[in-house]
Amino acid sequence: MKTIKLITGNKGKYLEMKDIANKSGIELEWVNCPKVEVQGDNLEEISMHSAIDSFLSFRTPLIVDDSGLFINALNDFPGPYTKFVKKTIGIEGILKLINGIKERSARFMTVITFVDGKNIITFRGEVNGEISLSPRGEMGFGFDPIFIPNGSDKTFAEMSIEEKNLYSHRAKAFQKFLDFFLTYNV
Amino acid sequence: MKTIKLITGNKGKYLEMKDIANKSGIELEWVNCPKVEVQGDNLEEISMHSAIDSFLSFRTPLIVDDSGLFINALNDFPGPYTKFVKKTIGIEGILKLINGIKERSARFMTVITFVDGKNIITFRGEVNGEISLSPRGEMGFGFDPIFIPNGSDKTFAEMSIEEKNLYSHRAKAFQKFLDFFLTYNV
Repeated sequence: MKTIKLITGNKGKYLEMKDIANKSGIELEWVNCPKVEVQGDNLEEISMHSAIDSFLSFRTPLIVDDSGLFINALNDFPGPYTKFVKKTIGIEGILKLINGIKERSARFMTVITFVDGKNIITFRGEVNGEISLSPRGEMGFGFDPIFIPNGSDKTFAEMSIEEKNLYSHRAKAFQKFLDFFLTYNV
Repeated sequence: MKTIKLITGNKGKYLEMKDIANKSGIELEWVNCPKVEVQGDNLEEISMHSAIDSFLSFRTPLIVDDSGLFINALNDFPGPYTKFVKKTIGIEGILKLINGIKERSARFMTVITFVDGKNIITFRGEVNGEISLSPRGEMGFGFDPIFIPNGSDKTFAEMSIEEKNLYSHRAKAFQKFLDFFLTYNV
């Protein structure tokens, strides 16, 4: 069975991806370790930098996951800085910022980046949706309680992992990676 | 005509690659700028790190070139640290280190690394040869005056650019890159 390391300090990401990996017959090995993140204009740049830095520590094929919530009415805030914004102004801050704004559309994006000794390859997944009026649900992590994907009435935090994976940005990016990895010679 | 930026502070590298690029109908644009180089076990690691760092400055598709001379009797010294060793102990130091050693085989290696906003891809070229008894020739750069590629009696520094490109590690790596780049959608 092919194995790949996932470097992340976020257990929620691992659990979502593990479910998908199992179905593809690939073993996902979680390395509970924070990664270096530069500031950058977009997820691919940040993610490629994290990937090579992680590779220089582990020197084995691995993947990293960089995700962000992009709110249209806020000019794509918080974008790549989701983690920092969650920790500082939090969900309440986001709801305050778009309070009174009718246009509540947003998208979640994930870039999964694979690195080995020879190449660095990125895989992007996106999901469109909108910001809920108030937080709902206890599952997931990050801004899941206020994001409702198009095609559903629930927030991500109201969904099981299996249900979230039917919609999620991360599932899409990770499936692209798995399709690549199944035929890639490491 | 497709264009690609080459980031290097070494004009000699540019001149060698320009000659090959022209023949493939690709325009090589020289950016005379040093690049960040981490210490690393092998050229690919160092080069992928330089590539993403350069990309974060220029944010346009580009290539970097990392090369090294690996002398078998010296356990692959100077390897990735060719530039530093040239500047410190120099050609005389290398000749002193292998003075009296019969086995003078060595190889030159180049890794050309391409980066755009989505991927980082490496291309390796190698040439086997041996270290000459004394420096010969005025052309080229680095350790060219003491490297004789297999199949020739001349050192790299005794060859014109065109002749060196028939043998060289850099020409091989760069031709691999060009074959890739001609069909890659940037």
